[in-house]
Order: sequence, then C-alpha cells, then structure tokens
Amino acid sequence: MATLAAERYPSRFDPSRLDEVEPAMRANIERRLDVLGPGYLLIYNDPVAFVRGRGAHLFDADGRDYLDAYNNVPVVGHCHPHVVEAVSRQLATLNTNTRYAQEGLVDYAERLVALLPEPLQRVTFACSGSEANDLALRVARHHTGHEGVIVNRYAYHGITREVAGISPALGEGSPLGANVRVIDPPDPTLVPAGGDLASHMLDETWRAIHDLRRHGFGTAALVLDLSFMSDGIFPEQDGYLQGMVDEVHAAGGVFIADEVQAGFARVGAGFWGFARHGVVPDIVTMGKPMGNGIPLSAAVFRPEVARDFGEQVRYFNTFGGSSVPIAAGAAVLDVFEQERVPERAERVGARLRAGIGALLADSPHVADVRGSGLLAAVEIVEDRDGRAPDRARTTRVIDGMREQRILISAAGPGVNVLKIRPPLAFDDADTDRFLESLEGVARRELR
Amino acid sequence: MATLAAERYPSRFDPSRLDEVEPAMRANIERRLDVLGPGYLLIYNDPVAFVRGRGAHLFDADGRDYLDAYNNVPVVGHCHPHVVEAVSRQLATLNTNTRYAQEGLVDYAERLVALLPEPLQRVTFACSGSEANDLALRVARHHTGHEGVIVNRYAYHGITREVAGISPALGEGSPLGANVRVIDPPDPTLVPAGGDLASHMLDETWRAIHDLRRHGFGTAALVLDLSFMSDGIFPEQDGYLQGMVDEVHAAGGVFIADEVQAGFARVGAGFWGFARHGVVPDIVTMGKPMGNGIPLSAAVFRPEVARDFGEQVRYFNTFGGSSVPIAAGAAVLDVFEQERVPERAERVGARLRAGIGALLADSPHVADVRGSGLLAAVEIVEDRDGRAPDRARTTRVIDGMREQRILISAAGPGVNVLKIRPPLAFDDADTDRFLESLEGVARRELR
Repeated sequence: MATLAAERYPSRFDPSRLDEVEPAMRANIERRLDVLGPGYLLIYNDPVAFVRGRGAHLFDADGRDYLDAYNNVPVVGHCHPHVVEAVSRQLATLNTNTRYAQEGLVDYAERLVALLPEPLQRVTFACSGSEANDLALRVARHHTGHEGVIVNRYAYHGITREVAGISPALGEGSPLGANVRVIDPPDPTLVPAGGDLASHMLDETWRAIHDLRRHGFGTAALVLDLSFMSDGIFPEQDGYLQGMVDEVHAAGGVFIADEVQAGFARVGAGFWGFARHGVVPDIVTMGKPMGNGIPLSAAVFRPEVARDFGEQVRYFNTFGGSSVPIAAGAAVLDVFEQERVPERAERVGARLRAGIGALLADSPHVADVRGSGLLAAVEIVEDRDGRAPDRARTTRVIDGMREQRILISAAGPGVNVLKIRPPLAFDDADTDRFLESLEGVARRELR
Repeated sequence: MATLAAERYPSRFDPSRLDEVEPAMRANIERRLDVLGPGYLLIYNDPVAFVRGRGAHLFDADGRDYLDAYNNVPVVGHCHPHVVEAVSRQLATLNTNTRYAQEGLVDYAERLVALLPEPLQRVTFACSGSEANDLALRVARHHTGHEGVIVNRYAYHGITREVAGISPALGEGSPLGANVRVIDPPDPTLVPAGGDLASHMLDETWRAIHDLRRHGFGTAALVLDLSFMSDGIFPEQDGYLQGMVDEVHAAGGVFIADEVQAGFARVGAGFWGFARHGVVPDIVTMGKPMGNGIPLSAAVFRPEVARDFGEQVRYFNTFGGSSVPIAAGAAVLDVFEQERVPERAERVGARLRAGIGALLADSPHVADVRGSGLLAAVEIVEDRDGRAPDRARTTRVIDGMREQRILISAAGPGVNVLKIRPPLAFDDADTDRFLESLEGVARRELR
C-alpha cells in the first residue's frame, strides 16, 4: 500500500466522523467537501476556525484565544499593523507589474540582496516557494547542462510538477523524477557506527553524484532545506555542508539553499539557514514568511549562474514583483528592523527550547529535544533505547496541546517529531503559556 | 539563431540605449539591471513608470494620465475602491490558510462554481495561472494515465518548468516537452483551400493524437486558451471545438480550458471563453484577473477527473485559498454584479471594435480587425494581398499610441497583431479617447 501525503499528517479531520462535529462546523465541512473535494485537508481531529488574528494569537468566533506555535507565514505576527497599513496604502495607490519601471521594486530587491552574502546579487520574484524552487531548477539545468537533482530522503520543496518530483515527502502517490536521488538528512542517528556526520553526508552525496553520472543525468543541483523540516528537523547540526557542496561543484552542479523554511531568521545564527555553515549557495530560494501572508517569493542567483537563462529564456511572473506584494515584503523588513525581530526570535527561541528541554529531559518517550532559533523539535519514541517512532503518542500530544488552544504539528518520516515553529512575534508571555500547557500535556502523555 | 522569448515583444527597452533615457529613469534602470538582471524586460523603447492608478487610468509622477488599454489583471479597474476596502479589512482581521475551516473560502468557492456549468464542481486554489495549469496537467496525467499534451503552435500557458514545456511562445531558449504536440490555432487563413475551419482543426487534432500514440505517450490533455491570445487572437471563431474535444475524449484524454486570458467576461458571449462553443471542459483554469492584482488562481475540475488525485496525492498551496486572496476574489465578483461588468464590457467592447473597424477599414496595412467582447485585435501587414506580417509597422503603432499615453501591445507569431485588452472598467469616454488617438496614429502609420 502506498504511503500517501495525507497520511503524513499527525492529526487531521476524518470525513467519516462528520456526525461528531458540532452543527455549524459540520455545515461548513460538508459544503467544503462538496466544493473543494477530498484534496483539501483540515488540521485536527477536532477542526478549528478562526475569525481574528494578532501577534502569535488567533481567536475563534467565541473569542477564545489560541496560541499559534505553528504558522511560519505570519512571521512578524498575524495582521501586523505596519504590514496591514503599508499593503493597504499600496493597494489604494497602484499595483502594476515589473514591466513598468518601479522604484519600490528596485528598493526592495536591493534591501533583500543586502541581507545575503555578496555573490548573491540577482533577484527574481515569484508568488510561492514552489514557483521559486521551480525556477531555481530551470536555471540550474540551463546553467549546468545537467539534469540530475539530489535532495533529502523526505524532502519537501513544493507542488508544481517539477518540484513535486523532488519532494519525496509527498508520498508514493506523487512520483519522483527519474533524475532525482535522495540522501540522508544530517541526522546523527543515521551515521554508521564509528563514523562521523560530515563523512557520512559526503558519502551520501558522492554516491548520489556517481549514480546520476552512471545514469547519464549528471548533477545539476543539490537542493537542501537547511532546517530539514520535513526530514525531522536538524537545523543545529554543523560541519558537514562545505564538503558536500565542494563535491557537487566538482561534478558541475550548483547548490540551491531552499530557505522557504529556514530563512528570515527562523533558525537563528544568522538570517538564513546556510549562514551557520560558512557556505555561500549558488542559488537561494525563499517564500512563505516573506510577505507575512501576501503571496511573495524569490530566487536569488549568483550572476554567472543566472546570466544565460536571463538572456535566453526570460521569465515573466505576472504577480511576482508587482507593487502590492513588494510593499508587503518591504513592510516585513521594516518590522524586522524596528522590532529587532531576529534578535528577539533568537532570545525567545533559546528560552523556549531550554524550557522544553527542562520539562522533557526525564521523559522515557522523548529521545531528543533539538532545534535552533525559534524552531523547536521534540522526538517522541516508544522508549528511549529502542528509539522507535511513536506516532500515536505524538498525535496525542498535538491534540492535547490543541485542547489547551495551542497550535503545533509534527514532522519527520515517522511523523513523530513535534514541530514547534511559531510566528517570530512569539514573546516571553507566549513562551510561558506554551511551557505551562506542555507541562500538563507531558504529564499525561509523555511519562 | 534561436528565437528567444524577449524577441517576441514589439516595443521593449534596449539596455544599450541607456544613455538616451532621462536621468531619474536612467538611475532606476541601472539599479534594476544590477539587482534584477537581464531577465526583467521593460515595456517600450521609452519606458514608463506610474505612481497611481484608478479605473482604466494610470498616472505618472508628473500627473500625466495614461489610458490603460492593455492590462487584464486590474479587471474591475486599477485600485477599485470596493476591492481595496475588502482586502484591507481582511488583512487587518485574519489571513490563514485552508487547513483551518473558513466560511469565506467555502462561500467564494461556491460562488465561483455557480459561474461554471454544472459538472465543474471541484475547486482548487493556487496563486498564479502557471500554478493552476501545472496542477491541471498533474491531475490530467494522473487521471488518464497518459503523458501527451496538445497545445497551439504559439501557445503560452505559464512559467513553471511543466507549463513552460507546453508554451512554444517562450521561444527556442525554453524547450518543449518530448510529449508535447502543437496544432494550428483557429486562424481561418491557415485552412487549406477548399477546406473549412472545423475540418482543419479536427485534422490537426487527429494528427497530434496519432503521433502521440505512435510515440507511446498517449493523449492526456488538449489545452487551449480560447482567446488564442499569443497565437494571434481568434476568440470569435466558432463551430470547431466540439469535434476536437470528442476526438480527445475518444483517445482517453481530457480537455483543459485555460481561461487565464479569455475568462472573467473578457471575450463576451458568456463569462468564459468556452461558453460560445457549447462545450463543457473537463478542467478549467483561471488566474490573472481573478483577484484584481492580488495573486489568486484556480483549477476547477469535474469530480470524477479530480477524485483519484485528490485522494492519492493531495495538494497544499500555502497562499492559494488563504483569507486575503479569497477576500480579493469575492470583492471582484461583488463588483462584477454591482456594476454589471460583463454587460458593460460587452457593450463597450462592441463599440470599441466597431470604431476600430471603421477607422481602419480602408488601410492597406490592415488585413483584419477582429476580437470579441473587450478584446480587440488588428492584424498589421505589409500589404493586404500578400498578408506578410509587418512587425516594424506594428511596433510604430504601439509606440505612437504610447506617445499619446495609451497602452497597448502586440501578439501573434509575427508580433504583428495589435493586442487591445483593457481593464473591463474601460468605459465610453475611454473608448472615445482611444479611437481619437488611434485615428491620429493610423493617419501616420497605417495609410
């Protein structure tokens, strides 16, 4: 039986249990199933609907306050007033595409490039992380003349056919490309006895390159999400990347850092996931948090990588880079500066992770508490020694937190790694509330 | 020498002429070239920058009023107050994704489906027309088990790798898929002597199906933009589609109507490009005008076509269907109802096309004035009898109109068909101004 994408969600609504849902929600779900079809998943056994958001908080129709420790899109907080104001003003003034000269477009592109290492200088805007990754692959293929792509074993890079083809996380219903090879994430438990992480990652990379060569594809790109979000969350590992990238370069390929998850100060230690590694990617892609909810994404290239594609293929994205999304992106950067978001996220994240670690240190069902910046992961297992993933228990923790009105989810091949990834607006009071609730849930589920 | 995408633009800025541009614009373009690279094309030899928009009008920094007879994205008018207000309100209230229950999402999906024939019932939202078409192809392949795709000879369906692969309009820099076959658009001049359009289109379709079968791909989908925008604009032809679709169905494929251009009342005679043909597509995709500039697109499926994909693959588009884009889409439909946009567009379009026809009827350089609804096309040729495309003259007309501060462009394989495609906010006064300016330009360039 194939593993389907939906099965990788820890707590989701099962339509066969529609009768158990309270009437107003049931009516909404029935209409939803009719008009949106089976492809639209609802989070939680007991689904939730919100009517208002502010900061890291979402409110339902009864005014109940949910703490959002899951959504990375509203990076500076749900409905941040500065972003709302800037976007509303732009909406009322002008919204044209990039084929007319625009000051705001160039200003924002320059601000974005200034956040990246010097060789990354050419920006192309799009709407979604999928579009950005899709473009990055087109450019990588065009530049290298190769077809092969190396990704992690449970990677997720998006939903166009091309990037779905490099996203094993989508499950067996969605085929990988014949030109795609998967390698381990930097999970220390996967390193063979006596080895080290860097050597293991290098071996993995080398084997993939060799296999792509043997099949005549060559290596166009190594694509990594440096938070390794869907592989189980390993942002804090270090020391292995330079060797992998050197190997890929030697094979004529490029390194694409997919910063849709790790970027925009999510994992601390610099603004981007690649920052801690001392490696400068050839292409960086970014998305979700970039416009705080207004669709905006980008791929940024080393000039020599993008040149031929830019001259020979061109690329016009109707909405990408148009005035309103750009105003959203600029407003997000304003807030990052005004509120010193990266510093706050790093500080709050450290406190949150330390608190979680202290709470769960002695749990027989917690194999690891890890993470970086404002991204925390808890690996839940049947028992510590055997380390077998305990998916059912993980789901109970998520549902328990949802009862406390705190939103989290899970990741990893075993769907047993709690994914705690709040808006970067998350503050100390939010951290206190989170830890207090987790303590109660852990007392029930993790002892 | 390969034909590149950029070469298909009639009037575009040539960076080698940067010295001739006035200082403020020159500074902007220099910075733009540095940070965006060569892939970002600027419309017009003499580029333009706007600071404000309203209705079918755009204004530059000196307050000069440009008449927009080209942009289809701001369908109900640039910065329409109702859309601005609705989107701003939603932005300040809530913006979450589809994995939480949302009334607005279901309400809008139902309104959208109500605008389509009954079998088209399942909506999936995305950000761009490219994403919608990419998804439509994934679903078509999954449903049919085939790989082959049939499109028009100069079709354009978007910019992901998958849909770029079915977009010959992108030029030789961008490869078509091995599984893609191209057929003539419904251009009466392509019909062999003694034949009729319907038979010719059927022959074309049959040949493509046969060739796909011989190559082992089978036929997954026929994809048509029923305005045939990039093939030279032939929305008004009729009587040929049912036979083509029957042939595709008999081969086990589906028919995808790409309504990114023709839809939302652009071509009159019903809300969609397929409406005049009495054919109900298996999948309809839509984009550009849908959110009046907020990124929003959709693919709508017959339930039986979408079922397996929905159950086995799932599809989560982070921004597609989130609260703000949905609010934009709903506000656009409000304006369509309140201002009776389709009726106005049909009436104004008929007057515009009649006026253009009357002005240019005697021009030795105009082979045809055609179009439908608020989409007008003028085919410009060296002389009427030979009908050789006159691209240089077409560009002079476009530049002449730009001097009069009226925005139009050109389409077609010869880049010699004026593309007059204003926001549907275009009114009688706009039509008067357009015709008056065209008369002056035609006196110089088309006599």
